[in-house]
Amino acid sequence: MIEAGSAVASEGERQALRLISDAGLSAEICTYVRAVPLDIDYAADYGADSVHLVIPVSDLHIEKKLRKSRDEVFSMAMDAVTYAKDRGLIVELSGEDASRADPSYLKKVYSGGLERGADRLCFCDTVGLLTPERVAEIIPPLCLAPLSIHCHDDLGMAMANTMAALHYGASCAHVTVNGLGERAGNTPFEELVMALEILYDYRTGIGTTEIYPLSALVSRLTGVPLPTNKAIVGEMAFTHESGIHAHGVLKEPSTYEPVPPEKIGRKRRIMLGKHSGSASVEAALSELHYHPDEKQLKEILSRIKDLGDKGMRVTDTDLMAVAEAVMAIECTPVLRMKQFTVVSGSNVIPTASVTLLVKDEEITSASTGTGPVDAAMEALRKSVAAVADISLEEYHVDAIHGGTDALVDVTVRLSKDGKIITSRGARTDIIMASVEAVIAGMNRLLREENEDRSKNPG
Amino acid sequence: MIEAGSAVASEGERQALRLISDAGLSAEICTYVRAVPLDIDYAADYGADSVHLVIPVSDLHIEKKLRKSRDEVFSMAMDAVTYAKDRGLIVELSGEDASRADPSYLKKVYSGGLERGADRLCFCDTVGLLTPERVAEIIPPLCLAPLSIHCHDDLGMAMANTMAALHYGASCAHVTVNGLGERAGNTPFEELVMALEILYDYRTGIGTTEIYPLSALVSRLTGVPLPTNKAIVGEMAFTHESGIHAHGVLKEPSTYEPVPPEKIGRKRRIMLGKHSGSASVEAALSELHYHPDEKQLKEILSRIKDLGDKGMRVTDTDLMAVAEAVMAIECTPVLRMKQFTVVSGSNVIPTASVTLLVKDEEITSASTGTGPVDAAMEALRKSVAAVADISLEEYHVDAIHGGTDALVDVTVRLSKDGKIITSRGARTDIIMASVEAVIAGMNRLLREENEDRSKNPG
Repeated sequence: MIEAGSAVASEGERQALRLISDAGLSAEICTYVRAVPLDIDYAADYGADSVHLVIPVSDLHIEKKLRKSRDEVFSMAMDAVTYAKDRGLIVELSGEDASRADPSYLKKVYSGGLERGADRLCFCDTVGLLTPERVAEIIPPLCLAPLSIHCHDDLGMAMANTMAALHYGASCAHVTVNGLGERAGNTPFEELVMALEILYDYRTGIGTTEIYPLSALVSRLTGVPLPTNKAIVGEMAFTHESGIHAHGVLKEPSTYEPVPPEKIGRKRRIMLGKHSGSASVEAALSELHYHPDEKQLKEILSRIKDLGDKGMRVTDTDLMAVAEAVMAIECTPVLRMKQFTVVSGSNVIPTASVTLLVKDEEITSASTGTGPVDAAMEALRKSVAAVADISLEEYHVDAIHGGTDALVDVTVRLSKDGKIITSRGARTDIIMASVEAVIAGMNRLLREENEDRSKNPG
Repeated sequence: MIEAGSAVASEGERQALRLISDAGLSAEICTYVRAVPLDIDYAADYGADSVHLVIPVSDLHIEKKLRKSRDEVFSMAMDAVTYAKDRGLIVELSGEDASRADPSYLKKVYSGGLERGADRLCFCDTVGLLTPERVAEIIPPLCLAPLSIHCHDDLGMAMANTMAALHYGASCAHVTVNGLGERAGNTPFEELVMALEILYDYRTGIGTTEIYPLSALVSRLTGVPLPTNKAIVGEMAFTHESGIHAHGVLKEPSTYEPVPPEKIGRKRRIMLGKHSGSASVEAALSELHYHPDEKQLKEILSRIKDLGDKGMRVTDTDLMAVAEAVMAIECTPVLRMKQFTVVSGSNVIPTASVTLLVKDEEITSASTGTGPVDAAMEALRKSVAAVADISLEEYHVDAIHGGTDALVDVTVRLSKDGKIITSRGARTDIIMASVEAVIAGMNRLLREENEDRSKNPG
């Protein structure tokens, strides 16, 4: 079942409901409605199969929000069920703030609704006040018909309460992709699915390899970033930094992974930092064709930890620079930047020139761009094009907080003939940081082919 | 109790342990150690009171990671307990991957450790595989001494499992601020504290009004952003957008808030967007001294929803612009930008000039800066200084993803004589977006004092 927004909210929501209803999906399309004919009309007119008909049932909501009596709300609810059934809709009758309601009143609303043709019931823990213990007590007597559980995560208990409700008789759980929702959000789709699959060995029928692509898509479209440490879909969920963890995973992934990342469309990542051990550093170096001896490896690890202690993320180019310093590999860069200049302004098309020294030859290129960074990058790309075909696959700037003189952290991913490298620049000047990151990465990609580091010169 | 990192990890961690131990806190200072004399020596030498001594106890970890036998690991564990006690440390003996261990082996390790002087036990659900049902079964027979529970959130169950363990006999819970930790992280401190306080009416002794400042500090220092929808400390945890929710909260906060935000050092926020209702728009307008009639309010709401449908965050200046258009309030800006120019580069000190038209007078200023944005902002500030004393309180740029031509979203907070306003600029050019945001905000602050909008001119 897909709840496709609230049709009364805006014209955009109505158009979305219409598009989703017309998409021919093998899912019941539902929309949120109040006990108001206008809302129900929108639901029917824009193609919904069903309504999530929400009735405030706690005295707090009835008296303070609606300024009505229990009897008035009961009548409104009953009229709304009748009206929605008349308009041919499947009705899920939902008690809002049910966890603070008088259970006898809630039961009366549910029973009355079922008599008037409601098809399903829903229990909304509107401000996240349930506990598994209360679920065990409250939910079973309310399962008068198929019952959905709708949890909010205000106190971090949405997953616990949803699981408990399913255990004690609820037949459906309301979830949202990435746990998006008002305030702290709702029960996350991806967590519930994977917990049911892995912990309870329950087959949900969800194609789990599509979970991460879906989460990433929703994050991109909503502009709400995936939390770094979020279960299943967070950036770090399958990343190992601790030496002990990485060491274990390199030997046998299941030691520190409850789910193989491929199962949900992801990949494992070993990150280097102050908690790294020699096993992960050696594995990363070997991938980059560096083969230090034991003493060198120890020294490389120690320098990586120093970088980590300074709070730095360690990229491929950082690791390579450290390895080369320790292994005394001569590292004349292929490219050197002689100068770059950027002019920009309100009446000026952003324009940049870049001069590179490539094996003592000067190459200067100029370009305009959509902004000063874009112009500089384009000029840089033009200069390098004479030497090699390198693409900027990804350009990322961490959010900038504080003031206009804050450090700007730029990470880039470059590719050349299928080889990929990450590199970083950090400056208070966003253009400088961007140019620095790209030139460092380019030098690494260009050196890879010219030199053989499989022979240890140490 | 504070677990101050793992002393063996790096020199920085050891210095941190020393500083924390010497800080004279009224807390036991603990450090993570393996069953290795080196780790235990570091713990003692750098001032720890206690060690979290972690012993792999599942056959998976024993055989695949350590490549040892149960007996070998048992001996190592016992020797380590004895050694740590000899070095004068309090010992919390911890079973790693305990949820996949043979319970009889785990019990043997625990009992043996206690015989050799271990003070406490800990059960590590290393990859987040526990369920509340398994906790109910496994934990009670293991409470041979004070037992800690250490949960990971890989399947979203860390809170559920930690709560269950406390219910079934554990006397201590391992938590981390913001739930930081390997992969999906650990049980979040702030969620556990508030769930115990609010849902179980249990007094933790934590000064809850310091929770949010602490979370924000940890986020800043670690560079890990607070997740948008995270319980208690997420940006949106006390933000209301839905019209129904905002309407309720404006009448009676407890309708949609399980905890008053002040209780954890935060503030309530009503956000405008496509789910907004007239009550929140009217409240926001009234705060900015706009008093539209009913018809105007309806039109303003509809335009705000249009902005929301386009995926925009609605700032103060957006709302004011909409209100003025609808209420036909003439809005001649006090400041107009005539031009700005920025030059930057590798051999160029970032330099900017800005010309403003202030009531037909041209004011041009120039400045250098730490980068081109900083130079432009400083030049702008100098030009405006002639007119009014406006401060840039906060400068924020959303993370930039994709390419160097991606849209850059700049939000600023400006203040003048205690009045604060938020404003936004969105361009592919970061300098342009920054200048645009600041000038829009400055105009609003300057107009506030010149005009009276309490009289409705419609």
